[in-house]
Order: sequence, then C-alpha cells, then structure tokens
Amino acid sequence: MAKLTEYKDMAPRAKAVVERIAAARGADPADINNVWKALARHPSVMEQFSTEIGQAMKPGALDALTKELVYLAVSIANQCDYCINSHTYMARKKGMSEAMYEEFMAVVAVADKGNKLAAAYRVPPDAAFEES
Amino acid sequence: MAKLTEYKDMAPRAKAVVERIAAARGADPADINNVWKALARHPSVMEQFSTEIGQAMKPGALDALTKELVYLAVSIANQCDYCINSHTYMARKKGMSEAMYEEFMAVVAVADKGNKLAAAYRVPPDAAFEES
Amino acid sequence: MAKLTEYKDMAPRAKAVVERIAAARGADPADINNVWKALARHPSVMEQFSTEIGQAMKPGALDALTKELVYLAVSIANQCDYCINSHTYMARKKGMSEAMYEEFMAVVAVADKGNKLAAAYRVPPDAAFEES
Amino acid sequence: MAKLTEYKDMAPRAKAVVERIAAARGADPADINNVWKALARHPSVMEQFSTEIGQAMKPGALDALTKELVYLAVSIANQCDYCINSHTYMARKKGMSEAMYEEFMAVVAVADKGNKLAAAYRVPPDAAFEES
Amino acid sequence: MAKLTEYKDMAPRAKAVVERIAAARGADPADINNVWKALARHPSVMEQFSTEIGQAMKPGALDALTKELVYLAVSIANQCDYCINSHTYMARKKGMSEAMYEEFMAVVAVADKGNKLAAAYRVPPDAAFEES
Amino acid sequence: MAKLTEYKDMAPRAKAVVERIAAARGADPADINNVWKALARHPSVMEQFSTEIGQAMKPGALDALTKELVYLAVSIANQCDYCINSHTYMARKKGMSEAMYEEFMAVVAVADKGNKLAAAYRVPPDAAFEES
Repeated sequence: MAKLTEYKDMAPRAKAVVERIAAARGADPADINNVWKALARHPSVMEQFSTEIGQAMKPGALDALTKELVYLAVSIANQCDYCINSHTYMARKKGMSEAMYEEFMAVVAVADKGNKLAAAYRVPPDAAFEES
Repeated sequence: MAKLTEYKDMAPRAKAVVERIAAARGADPADINNVWKALARHPSVMEQFSTEIGQAMKPGALDALTKELVYLAVSIANQCDYCINSHTYMARKKGMSEAMYEEFMAVVAVADKGNKLAAAYRVPPDAAFEES
Repeated sequence: MAKLTEYKDMAPRAKAVVERIAAARGADPADINNVWKALARHPSVMEQFSTEIGQAMKPGALDALTKELVYLAVSIANQCDYCINSHTYMARKKGMSEAMYEEFMAVVAVADKGNKLAAAYRVPPDAAFEES
Repeated sequence: MAKLTEYKDMAPRAKAVVERIAAARGADPADINNVWKALARHPSVMEQFSTEIGQAMKPGALDALTKELVYLAVSIANQCDYCINSHTYMARKKGMSEAMYEEFMAVVAVADKGNKLAAAYRVPPDAAFEES
Repeated sequence: MAKLTEYKDMAPRAKAVVERIAAARGADPADINNVWKALARHPSVMEQFSTEIGQAMKPGALDALTKELVYLAVSIANQCDYCINSHTYMARKKGMSEAMYEEFMAVVAVADKGNKLAAAYRVPPDAAFEES
Repeated sequence: MAKLTEYKDMAPRAKAVVERIAAARGADPADINNVWKALARHPSVMEQFSTEIGQAMKPGALDALTKELVYLAVSIANQCDYCINSHTYMARKKGMSEAMYEEFMAVVAVADKGNKLAAAYRVPPDAAFEES
C-alpha cells in the first residue's frame, strides 16, 4: 500500500497543489483523496499530473460527463481499481444515471471483446476508414 | 493477416449477418468491412458479436457519439490498431469535431497516466468514493 | 522491424540452438522461423527461451494441442500478432479443427469480457473458491 | 468493492438469471457467486454475459476442462484476480490435476515471455505460417 | 496509419514545438520524426507531451541512458512498436552496447514473467517490503 | 490469495531453491518472501524462475540498480502490485534515492503516455531509427 502523506505533513509544493484542488471543489484540504496523499512525496510528478488532469477534464467541446466516461472507460480497460472507484463516483456526481451506467458498461464490454477479436483474426485496417 | 472471406463467398449464416449490417447502413453487402470478412469463418462468433455490438451501440440513455468515444477510448487503451482506425472514423461520422477529438485525446492520455500512477504508488481506494 | 540474422550468418551459439530446433522438427536450419533469426543477436536470451519453450510445450499431463491452445489464448489476450500467426498455425498442425477453433474463440472472447466486467464492477473474490 | 445485491433482493430479471445458473449447477440461488451479485444491477449486461458464457463453456468440439484452461490462461494474461480465483477452482473441479496445473503454468509463463520478446525484437510474422 | 503533417504545413503552434525539438538536437525541423507529424493536428496535446518528455528525459539524478532503458522497458511491456523502434535507437545512441542490450532484454523478459506468475498464484505483497 | 507453503513444509526440490536464495542473501530460509512460498507447489516452475531471475539480475554490463529500475518499470506498466512492492523495496536497497525515484516515475509516466499516443494516432515507425 502507498505511503500516504496527510495534508498537514506535506511539503509546501505539495500543499499548494492540494489547496488548489480543494478550493476548486469547495472542500477541506484535509479531506483530499488518496492519490494526492501518495503523490505528495514527489512534487514534480504531482504538479505535472494535477495541471494536466485539471486542463483535460474541464468542460469544453466535450462536456464534463462525457469526459468522465472516457476516463472511466480507459480505467476499466487498464483494470485500475483505484481509478474505477474514483471515476465511477465522479461520473455519477456529474450526472450518470443508472441507465447510462448500464449502457456504458455494454459498450465497454463489446469494445474490449472487439479489440481481442480483431487481434485474434489479425484483421487488416479498412482502407475506407483511413483518413485521407 | 486474416483470412478474409468476401461476401459472395460466405456461408448463408454469415451472409445473413452481413446483409443485416449493410441494410442498417444503407450500404452494399459487398463493401462490408474487414472484421466481418474475418469473422465469417466462425458464424456463431460472428452472430454473437454482431448482435451484441448492434444492441450496445444504438442510441439510448447515451447518445451515439458518446458511445463511439467510449468504444474508441477502450480501443486506444488496448492499442487495437484495427479498432482505432474504424472507430475514429465512426466518431467523426457521428459528429466528433477536431476540437472534440483533441480534448478526447487529452482525457485518454491523462487517464492512462493516472492509471499507472495509481498502480505505481499502490494507492488504496478512497472510502469516500465507495458506493454505499 | 527486427534485424534478422540468417542461419548461415549466425554465431556458433545461435547456430547450435537453431540446429537443435530444426532437428526436432525434421526441417532445414535455413528455414528457421523469424523469432529465432531475431533472437540470434542475443545468444543467452535465445538459449534460455528455446530451452524453456521446449520443456513447456512437450506433451505430458497435458497434450500438445491443449498446450498450443493455452499459448494461443495468452497471445490473443496480449495481442501479439507474431505469436497469434505462429500458434494458430501450430494449433491447426497439432489437430485443431475449424469447429475447435470456433469454440476456442468463443471462450477467449467471453473470458476477456468477464475479466473486464469483474474489474469494472470491482467484484471481490469468492471465498468458496479459495483453496483451503 | 462492488455493490453486491443478494439473490433475495434482486429484481425479477436478475433473479431469473441466477435461478437458471443455480439450477444448472444443482445449487441454491442464495449461494450464487459474487460476479452475479455485482451484475444484478444491470440486467441487460447480466443476461448477455450469462447467455454468452453458458454457450461458450459447454462441452463441444473442445471438452470442458480445455475450455476452463483457455479461460484461465486469458485471465492470467489479463491479471484478473477475481477470475483467476474462480477459474482455477473450476479447472480443478473439472479434472485439472496438480501435474496438469504445473504444466499449464509453464506454458502460460513462456507464452507471455514469448509475446514480449516478439514485440521487443519487432519480429515480422512468418510467411510460412500464414493461412493460404 | 496516422495523418502526418509535414513541418512546412504545420500551424504556428506546432511549428514552434518542432523547432524547439530540432534545435535541441541540432537537426533540421523538416526531418522531425513521425510522432510529432502526427501530433501536429492537436497543438495542446503536442505541447503538453513535448514539455513533459523534455523534462522527464533530461539527465538528473538518473543519467540519460538509464532513462532511455526505463522508457524502453515500459514500451516493451506495452508492446508499442513505434516506441520500441525509437527508443531502442535512442538507447544505442546514448551508449547502450550490445552486451547491455542483451542483459536488458533478459531483465525485461523475467520481469514480465514474474508479473504474470505473481498474478497467477495470487501472491500477497510481502509485509517486510512495505515502506514504513 | 495464494496457497502459501512455509519453508519447513516444502518438498525437497522447493527447499533447495529457497536455501539457495536465502544463502545468497545471508537470510533465514524461514523468512523467504511470498512468491517462493506460492511457487513451492510447482517445483519445475519455481526452479526455472529462480534460475532465470538469478542470472538476469546479477550485475554485468548493467549495474544492479539499473536492472532493478528496469524490472520495476515493467511491473508498473503491467500493474503488478506484488512486484511493485518488492522491486521498489529492492531498488531502494540497491541505492535508489528519493530524487532518483521521482525522476524514474516521471519517465515511466511519460513513456506510458507516449505509448498510448503512438497507438491512438497510429504513428508509423521512423525509417531513420530502423537498424540497418
């Protein structure tokens, strides 16, 4: 299990990251989630990841829920238990209904299977789908 | 590379699958894409996959584009070249703009990295995100 | 693409490995398959792998075809195109009929999907299945 | 961890799936294993998976034990802890001896290594193994 | 295959990235490698990745060759053909001898196998190795 | 969880492996780590793996720490929790400072992302990097 550093024990650079995240969520820095408590030992990795995820997940041409579903889909394909827990929660919080969740799971399941079938039968890419 | 069977040479069960797909797309069965030409040798696998993908991808609580993005996200995480080619095309056809594509890629990239960081630091799931 | 070394150009240690494999197959060392032409640059890796695969694949409590199917299943899960090509061929040579191949693919497809569903729903292992 | 629904609390569609599985095993629906308790929240995913796994795993051209070994091989390659636990148990129940298990593990280990060596050395598929 | 944009046809933001990389290498921007020609369509993803890789790979507490070997090890585990080609080249350029390459491959092979054995036998982490 | 066999209960072939490992570390065989307690049930797999890892990890053209970092990089890419725990410990024991660990993580993170970007944009290998 990770060596987790609580907010009060973090170095200044790590504290600054946590404060920025907590402020954006209107939450107490002491309640920051575990990934940040683990990353706190390596401020440069932590700063890089927090900046990148902040930019990637903010609504733009794609809305916030769609982005969560994409994040969750990748996490399931990679079988990341920590990330599945967090991003299933986030997706629900951003509006994923039980019906959406069920359809999402059906897509993930068939996509994963389709990936393996394409590999198993060694299917060559369709020329008609290549970008010109 | 796959042994590909052209539509005209397929067994009746495989032809029936191709005809159903082509009809739904308003396309010529002879122009069916490669995955179906590869699956045609195994009708039971082909029927199962075509039924499953048809049900999973039809719009419902989630719209067609969101479903394509989820499929594409899984395919990138699994590094399936055939599937990435097909579903990038499909996503564009269903409305993915270049701006959406760029944001989508940023989410996929950070999700994949987040998955590996969670594994590397052995981060325990957050109790606050568990479903009660 | 790999730097491939033809048999005639291999160092003595690599030649010895190829000769042993070719003799076991009753084949010409010059016709050795590509993986050995690639491994020839690193004799210690080549010797280790050839010994290990020779021991693992010889019939014992499990027959030769079952072993090929297990090898192929792993190769599909890992999406190794080279290995899928070789071991689909080997499986056919060792008796895999088209009906067996079709059933095999159905098992691989559902196993892969089952793996992802177990991850997605974060299913805890069944106590009843644990070895006592 | 998954939100698990006990049999007595499941919706009718989920109960029907569990009853069918329990009947086939001559077991009590209340003792159903965890994957079904997790899938119960999404009846369409549950029905699809139970039908597919039932068809794929029933003996045919391949016997029941061979199918279990293929399922287990995929699960190990994908590192699915839940599935490894279940299908190691199933394989033993269907006749996997300790000697078979040991040989199986040797094949899985060398297959996985072979997959990575082929990738690392970028070995091109052998023309001689391509299906004509 | 990727839609590749040549340097002369890139948008200003993409050109700026390429010029910075080419300058650091003392090379002609027109000879930039393919990953940048592919990323050029999405300047924000391109800028993010080029900044991150530049910071991560510059020598520090770890030397440049060690960093290349770590990058290559990840790329082999993920079976990324593009990356294996590039980073095997980079590792050689930064001093990887054939003897180092051979030993590196032996470590990658046994690590990958060790990962699968740990999963297959469901080995619990050693308390003695946990960080206090 | 694995069926673990304590040293005192192992069969002679397994005991011999453990004694050799313990002797090399100047440790008590009773304190052997869990992977060997799990592998003890399958002496041929155990002997093969212990020999291979012993040869691969001993210092040569690459030093011991570099080899640990390569092993750890593969284990993170494969998300093997057992292996990450063991080899993070081993790397620290062989001299990985916190600064090295931080830089290592930055390389692993960007490598993993680079792998996925190359797949997603379907980037063709650079001819200039191919080995002649």
